[in-house]
Amino acid sequence: MTEPAPSGGGPAELSKNALKKAAKEKEKAEKKAAAKAKELAERQKKETDDANDVSAEDYGELPMVGSAEFKPTGLQRESLSNITELEDKEIVFRCWVANARVQSAKLAFLNLRQGLNTIQAVVAASEKLSKQMVKFAGNISTESTLLVHGLVKKTPEPVKSATIQDYEIHITKLFIEVKAEVPLPMQVEDAERPLPSEGLGDEDEKAEESDGRPLVGLNTRLNNRTLDLRAKINHAIFVIKSGVCALFQEFLGSKGFVLIQTPKILGAASEGGANVFQVKYFDREAFLAQSPQVYKQMLIASRFPRVMEIGPVFRAENSNTARHLTEFTGLDMEMEFQENYHEVMSMLEDLMLFIFKELNARYKQETELVRSAYHVDEFKLPESGKVPRIPFSEGIKMLREAGEELGDYDDLSTPQEKHLGKLVLERYNSDFYVLDQFPLAIRPFYTMPSPTNPALSNSYDMFMRGQEILSGAQRVHNAELLIKLMKSHDPPVDPTGPGMRDYVESFRYGCPPHGGGGFGLERIVQFWLGLPNIRMCSLFPRDPQRIMP
Amino acid sequence: MTEPAPSGGGPAELSKNALKKAAKEKEKAEKKAAAKAKELAERQKKETDDANDVSAEDYGELPMVGSAEFKPTGLQRESLSNITELEDKEIVFRCWVANARVQSAKLAFLNLRQGLNTIQAVVAASEKLSKQMVKFAGNISTESTLLVHGLVKKTPEPVKSATIQDYEIHITKLFIEVKAEVPLPMQVEDAERPLPSEGLGDEDEKAEESDGRPLVGLNTRLNNRTLDLRAKINHAIFVIKSGVCALFQEFLGSKGFVLIQTPKILGAASEGGANVFQVKYFDREAFLAQSPQVYKQMLIASRFPRVMEIGPVFRAENSNTARHLTEFTGLDMEMEFQENYHEVMSMLEDLMLFIFKELNARYKQETELVRSAYHVDEFKLPESGKVPRIPFSEGIKMLREAGEELGDYDDLSTPQEKHLGKLVLERYNSDFYVLDQFPLAIRPFYTMPSPTNPALSNSYDMFMRGQEILSGAQRVHNAELLIKLMKSHDPPVDPTGPGMRDYVESFRYGCPPHGGGGFGLERIVQFWLGLPNIRMCSLFPRDPQRIMP
Repeated sequence: MTEPAPSGGGPAELSKNALKKAAKEKEKAEKKAAAKAKELAERQKKETDDANDVSAEDYGELPMVGSAEFKPTGLQRESLSNITELEDKEIVFRCWVANARVQSAKLAFLNLRQGLNTIQAVVAASEKLSKQMVKFAGNISTESTLLVHGLVKKTPEPVKSATIQDYEIHITKLFIEVKAEVPLPMQVEDAERPLPSEGLGDEDEKAEESDGRPLVGLNTRLNNRTLDLRAKINHAIFVIKSGVCALFQEFLGSKGFVLIQTPKILGAASEGGANVFQVKYFDREAFLAQSPQVYKQMLIASRFPRVMEIGPVFRAENSNTARHLTEFTGLDMEMEFQENYHEVMSMLEDLMLFIFKELNARYKQETELVRSAYHVDEFKLPESGKVPRIPFSEGIKMLREAGEELGDYDDLSTPQEKHLGKLVLERYNSDFYVLDQFPLAIRPFYTMPSPTNPALSNSYDMFMRGQEILSGAQRVHNAELLIKLMKSHDPPVDPTGPGMRDYVESFRYGCPPHGGGGFGLERIVQFWLGLPNIRMCSLFPRDPQRIMP
Repeated sequence: MTEPAPSGGGPAELSKNALKKAAKEKEKAEKKAAAKAKELAERQKKETDDANDVSAEDYGELPMVGSAEFKPTGLQRESLSNITELEDKEIVFRCWVANARVQSAKLAFLNLRQGLNTIQAVVAASEKLSKQMVKFAGNISTESTLLVHGLVKKTPEPVKSATIQDYEIHITKLFIEVKAEVPLPMQVEDAERPLPSEGLGDEDEKAEESDGRPLVGLNTRLNNRTLDLRAKINHAIFVIKSGVCALFQEFLGSKGFVLIQTPKILGAASEGGANVFQVKYFDREAFLAQSPQVYKQMLIASRFPRVMEIGPVFRAENSNTARHLTEFTGLDMEMEFQENYHEVMSMLEDLMLFIFKELNARYKQETELVRSAYHVDEFKLPESGKVPRIPFSEGIKMLREAGEELGDYDDLSTPQEKHLGKLVLERYNSDFYVLDQFPLAIRPFYTMPSPTNPALSNSYDMFMRGQEILSGAQRVHNAELLIKLMKSHDPPVDPTGPGMRDYVESFRYGCPPHGGGGFGLERIVQFWLGLPNIRMCSLFPRDPQRIMP
């Protein structure tokens, strides 16, 4: 630091100032000398210590990986998931520090994490392991990445603070691969705690748990998403989300569905024009796709008999609820059918039953980890294996009998949907069910009217825990009928408009009858796990308030 | 049509006009009576014919599926792929008309298509099959969807006009499920022919093949994409594209990669700001993601050790070439590594070798169908199984020896890349190879500099048939080094800017060393098949000129 320039003053003050300055400079010089002496003493002590340090080669900070030429060590890094097979073996593994503390000059404990596992590690001074190394170990900053060599030993009694309770690591070598800076803007362990209620209110940010730790709200978590996502609960959520995508493709792939990618930039707002984001496309205007609907159907018209898509869906809805996002992942499918759109419904039901079954089988650990934090009930499925397929009119009847007031052709509100979910659970013992034959007026213009009642339609929604996860229908595959429905729709849709022309024409070339549906992936994950807010199921959620990080 | 009103005239002309009018009316009345008599005669004849029509129940147009109540027939629809197992059996199948013609009053031939198969069908008059039915069959409009009942018979000699040459269908019942309108704006068989050259020039639209058929250019095809996509060659391309996605996930999934979805709407232009599409986000400005780069890395920092993504990538580049799209599908991956970024390169090489091997095994029919239309050589892979991994400096040397003039740190032009591709093919007998250690200056700011030469970097590109399909690198995982590189980059990047702040901070929390890469899916398909234009590999391609359909 440079000394500030004197701020002026008259000649009378000059000698006074000069004196003061001289005194100051003397003081400074003395301080400097003292500091130098101290530094020298410390360095000498360290040199002596280092010379005496039997562990000097066994710990420290490694150079930045990639910044030195490659000399492979050939050391195999182990996974802690295999710990039972590694008992009494000397192993090498990468992990990071969940917690480090010095117990005494001779003993330090580390809580090490790798994936969903944590394990206790002991650094104990001995003939072969120096006190310097113990000190080093106990002072490593939380979240640093380590390369650890150690012996896997059975513990005398279960270690309650770790997920692996029957084993611990007796460390022999310990290197910091990448050091985490201190302080962190947020603690990962606070992100392990369940969100208070839906996590949307500002008041949540100020609350405290009964143990005095801060109750970290959703906004703080999302603002520090990199740290937040390190929480085991978040790893579990996104491993499950990845799993749902894999299972969706595995099942439909085995049924002959072809994975497609339809454009997200559209020359015209395809589905009515409301709630659509505008894009500046060179010197033109374009729009972001609100669904792959138009294109899925054009591909059916192109004789792709079964198509599926996993892709982003954009909705410019100013909805600030716990179950809306402006960008989410659509799991879409569309297929020809032979005689009746119930063939499509059966495909969708079988798909979901497969996904639920395999989530229970392949993602049991992750599912239990999340549900236990939120005290969520198991997801109930009918023992018969037959998904309740309830006519919309029957749903209305059930709600009326339970005291709700609504008309035959009214749409259900969210609370009514949840209410119906409870009634269905009571009657059918299932958290998953389908409503069939919705009123035509509350469905999109491309929905096939019902043959039995023109006020109804061949359309359906699927529900998990009383909340909608899919909307689908038989689509109109005849151009003239489609045009008629577009014109009579409220609001009417122009069949000759730029976004509709090619779509309508597609149905003049002998397009087979077809139907399909679109799932919201984040909703499937949210309701499978019983989570309070859909933002928890998006890595970097987008809502009307948030486009960062 | 109504008669035009008389155009006036004086009283002298009145009687003349009246006479003329009376004569006209008489003539009209006579014509009307004659037409009525003819219609009556025809109707009577038809009624007699119908009464005599032994096949009356066996053909006709079905009501619109979905518009009548469901009475399942229980009939199993067969796939023509299993034709050899169906010999001498009476089968039912859905198909569409590639071609129909009346040979005589007693005989009609249909060329029927289902998926990639076509088969000849015969409608022959007999005691049980009426001439009316023969006439009906021979006049069905091309592209109509049919439900056919018929007997599978071995043909006396191969049917050259069909893909199934050893069998034909002797039709017993024939129903139109969905009629195609006539005329079609484009013939599907014209879309089966290879594109002339790259298909971009307008002159292609006017050319003719030697057989006198029109040479349908790319624009006409893309403007009528629903019909164009029906071509077998296009079905094959997109089945292969779906296959590449499945194989990508199958391989990386087995290596522990988690499928992620990163946001496509960004609060700030993440990678420099050039070539980015702007979005109106409520009352704010937002941008479309040019790659998942920033988010993939933030997830590595969040301790997801291996991530992959399949998603749209948006580039506002005004490039009107045969290998650029403004929206394409990125196959992205990012992973931690232990000691050296070559671990990442090995993963990528093994991934591509797996994809090539399985494309050859599982998608042989589709690959051969497309390549044979374009007379494309087989895709050569090194017999040793070892992918040529060529230092960039060695690539420069090879090009110089072949007469190219370029500096040590110059980027390669597209023609130079293609030239190098030929040289590599000669030397290594491989259409797939990797260039390693690119000059730092021509790579993005987040690229790790080389430990051996600071002008180089730990980065690589992958090539197929001399054209780039992937760009990748070790990324900088240390915040201070990253900031330094951002500031010294040309043009400099602001590490505190809204798009970069969270990204840079992520590397303060102990992020492990990592690397990855991003493939262009359409390019993999294009170069695997040796196609002249990338638009052929996008269902509904987007370029600076095209956002429709």
